[in-house]
Amino acid sequence: MNLRLKSIHSVLKQRRLDGLLVSLPANISYLAESLSRDAYLLVSLKGNFYFTDSRYVEEAKAFLSDNAKLKECNGSVFRHIAETILSLRLKNVGFEDRYLPFAEFTRIKEEASGKINLIPTHSIVEDKRQIKDAGEVDKLRKAARITALALEHIRQFIVPGVKEIEIVAEIERFIRYQGARGPSFDIIVASGPNSSQPHHLSGARRLKSNEPVLIDLGVDFQGYKSDLTRVFFLGKINTLVRKVYDIVLRAQELAIKKIRPGAEMAEIDRVAREYIAEKGYGKCFTHNLGHGFGLEIHEGPNISGREASAIKPGMTFTVEPGIYLPGKFGIRIEDMVLITTKSCEVISGARNK
Amino acid sequence: MNLRLKSIHSVLKQRRLDGLLVSLPANISYLAESLSRDAYLLVSLKGNFYFTDSRYVEEAKAFLSDNAKLKECNGSVFRHIAETILSLRLKNVGFEDRYLPFAEFTRIKEEASGKINLIPTHSIVEDKRQIKDAGEVDKLRKAARITALALEHIRQFIVPGVKEIEIVAEIERFIRYQGARGPSFDIIVASGPNSSQPHHLSGARRLKSNEPVLIDLGVDFQGYKSDLTRVFFLGKINTLVRKVYDIVLRAQELAIKKIRPGAEMAEIDRVAREYIAEKGYGKCFTHNLGHGFGLEIHEGPNISGREASAIKPGMTFTVEPGIYLPGKFGIRIEDMVLITTKSCEVISGARNK
Repeated sequence: MNLRLKSIHSVLKQRRLDGLLVSLPANISYLAESLSRDAYLLVSLKGNFYFTDSRYVEEAKAFLSDNAKLKECNGSVFRHIAETILSLRLKNVGFEDRYLPFAEFTRIKEEASGKINLIPTHSIVEDKRQIKDAGEVDKLRKAARITALALEHIRQFIVPGVKEIEIVAEIERFIRYQGARGPSFDIIVASGPNSSQPHHLSGARRLKSNEPVLIDLGVDFQGYKSDLTRVFFLGKINTLVRKVYDIVLRAQELAIKKIRPGAEMAEIDRVAREYIAEKGYGKCFTHNLGHGFGLEIHEGPNISGREASAIKPGMTFTVEPGIYLPGKFGIRIEDMVLITTKSCEVISGARNK
Repeated sequence: MNLRLKSIHSVLKQRRLDGLLVSLPANISYLAESLSRDAYLLVSLKGNFYFTDSRYVEEAKAFLSDNAKLKECNGSVFRHIAETILSLRLKNVGFEDRYLPFAEFTRIKEEASGKINLIPTHSIVEDKRQIKDAGEVDKLRKAARITALALEHIRQFIVPGVKEIEIVAEIERFIRYQGARGPSFDIIVASGPNSSQPHHLSGARRLKSNEPVLIDLGVDFQGYKSDLTRVFFLGKINTLVRKVYDIVLRAQELAIKKIRPGAEMAEIDRVAREYIAEKGYGKCFTHNLGHGFGLEIHEGPNISGREASAIKPGMTFTVEPGIYLPGKFGIRIEDMVLITTKSCEVISGARNK
């Protein structure tokens, strides 16, 4: 059994749980140390069990080894889960309350004729995932590297007349040739006024001269996700755009300087937010400063003004201040940092010049 | 208020519900007649309410019109939902039990101090979605057309030495240039023995001569998804591969011939399954014959041996028999059909020659 599963066993003992039913795919992938699809994982002090169906049996056999016993489910997976819990005589079994749908909770209860005590739990595996080990950092570095290369590659396509969706197409093609499994989210290419929507859907709009083009992209490398945003300019840069750009860039620099183990997350958010407010754009920075990334593109920690926890070595998160002027334009600059023992390292490569 | 929302209001009256909290994105998109992201929709006899946050306010304003009132949520969306339900004095409010996580159910209950009766419901919106209207059929036809074009385009890349993931890259690029929002799922390119896994993850394996290459692809056109599988051959076709291919193709033809309004879904599955069993490969056809497609790539109806419901005009589903010989190869042929008043139309274009 691997170290990750062992660490969950320790949590179970501390919390006096006999088992934990894991249903979030990223959590299962983390514990199985391989990409898991359409599965449930029961981690228990009496053995770990992996439930999937015939479609995924071949690949699961290949990666499970002695980490968990494979249960091929014909018919209801919930009946299989309930039967396994009953046969192991597990009394108190935790489940992931943010991910298990109400109907699945009910089904497992019913299949066990109410003889199982299902207990809501929160973030048991996600908390472990916040601290990346050396193997994970390697994959994240590789993902970051492909992302930076994609940005270099795409410069030649950023010319007036090209559609946003065509830029997306070229990025997606490029990253797969570089070894990525695919993009880590719907790549955003937002031109001109479209850049004022933080989560614009790339579409048929054609790039125009003298407009900013915001590109927010990320790749999935062996399950690990990257996230990077840059703004490009076509032709002449309008004075206001330049001014806003410089404010966002400075806000990001100030925040990054403050990042070190022990610092409060809210403090990092505050540094960027206060600088932007000072410059008169406080109401235009409408989202949190950053978020963790790893097996999911958005995961813990949350770099927000409400997050009092301390930053720890091994965490990886984005730093992405933004200023959005609805109907006009938006600027966001996003980099990825890895927390080191003393400060942080920007792993997203060269910054905008 | 549009017809789709009105039809849900009728269901609410029949079921004596005061409202329905819709949380599945595809269901919300269907009722809003536009792509919805990170939102909840409360459909009620006292008005419809759409809950989202600042990131999506601009786009939601553009499509909601008089279908629902926009509620921009700062802080917990669950508190906003609970407050709205309380202020409207809705007593019995249904929720989608397969999609609402246990924790969200609990949060809404708590925010309302237990004063709301939340009632599990199942498939209220999904049932409506099974029958496509003319506008939906147009989009699905367009999605199918782009998919067929992509298959034509990709033939030139199917040569020995090319990696599976590179074929995926070219398909994804091509479909975006053709107007698709992107692929409708992770495109499968499975070469040689990889084709024996029905849901193979496309990877770095290079195509080889005298092997089959299975390609399962689909596109998203304005939210509507297509799904199509073909097997290509490089060089000489082994006798066994040819034989299995012909069995799968014949099984599909026999099934398609039986499709007509009023036929039982299980019967259609049975026709293909019995033919494959007759030929000695019964145990190698390990999944259902087909599934509905539309706003989701897998939706109702389910074309399985356990499904006794009748086929109806306006349904769209796949017909995809397969034979998988683990470690050797697999053959699946998948087409999309639209149920007409008398029989069905294969909308996925020309079949393999």
